[in-house]
Amino acid sequence: MPTLYIAGPEVFLPDAAEVMGEKRRIAAGFGFAVTGPGPDENANPTTEVRTARGIYLKDRRMMLEAEYCLANITPFRGVSADVGTVFEIGFMIASGRRVWAYSNDPRPYGARVWSEWYRQEGPQAMAGADGLVIETYGLADNLMIDCGIAEHGGQVIRPEGPVADPDRDLAAYTSALELMAASL
Amino acid sequence: MPTLYIAGPEVFLPDAAEVMGEKRRIAAGFGFAVTGPGPDENANPTTEVRTARGIYLKDRRMMLEAEYCLANITPFRGVSADVGTVFEIGFMIASGRRVWAYSNDPRPYGARVWSEWYRQEGPQAMAGADGLVIETYGLADNLMIDCGIAEHGGQVIRPEGPVADPDRDLAAYTSALELMAASL
Repeated sequence: MPTLYIAGPEVFLPDAAEVMGEKRRIAAGFGFAVTGPGPDENANPTTEVRTARGIYLKDRRMMLEAEYCLANITPFRGVSADVGTVFEIGFMIASGRRVWAYSNDPRPYGARVWSEWYRQEGPQAMAGADGLVIETYGLADNLMIDCGIAEHGGQVIRPEGPVADPDRDLAAYTSALELMAASL
Repeated sequence: MPTLYIAGPEVFLPDAAEVMGEKRRIAAGFGFAVTGPGPDENANPTTEVRTARGIYLKDRRMMLEAEYCLANITPFRGVSADVGTVFEIGFMIASGRRVWAYSNDPRPYGARVWSEWYRQEGPQAMAGADGLVIETYGLADNLMIDCGIAEHGGQVIRPEGPVADPDRDLAAYTSALELMAASL
């Protein structure tokens, strides 16, 4: 049975246990044994760095127990994916694991930066008002994420249009699992 | 001569060549041979995914040529570090490289989320108005970044107070290099 690590910011949801439990059930239905993370990951945050270290070590162990990774790169508190998830994508790719990802935002990164960061629609340049270059490759997020995933045999799945609840929608997640299961 | 990969969002600055050149010069002064990235990384962005792939492969090669990594995790377009940089931190840690990081923002992640994402000062809870949990470990960013770096022998450096130009300030960068050079 192929082993899978499910990376994503669901750990921060108030209903994390339900959403993560549902993701595990769907993955099991496609034949994956899920190594982590646990649905109780962030249930009891404290201000102690010692606890943060414990979570890191546990997540690291669960990543290394998995052959595959499916990451939720839906924008989290801003224009890009959750950085904890992105750390895990880089970690898994360097560990020789095949990584897939999905986003519940249909837009490419560049369009998102224009509308959400610069609050501007219409004709767009290669740089914002602050002079910072905007990646306009049509990818879901920073090129290291999209290209890293593609280069090592994975795919990034996006919906065709907006979804009602991007924090919890599991349609793109399910499509990604279907593709993964078919490719193994 | 120890080899170093300098990860950070400086590639997106309009004066990327100057800032990245200066970072290379300072690193050389501490005895590091810098493998990348090049100061011309994002000078000619195009809409072609092929070019994005080329940048990924070049950055990947330069990462693997380096024994050490120093990453700039100053918040970029939001409350967290540039996701391209975070991908590289995870990649380098999994590749067995020691990674250091610095931020030009003195605040811990939790305080930043409260003031910049929820636009709220004063007493703060463990979750925002949207119910999403906020990591309040006092770390510079998501725990995977801070703890990953610490667990594998590196350190995260932050300034004592606000800096005038967080996109370009090199004081914390220089302090980090000093610590790195002393620890090798």
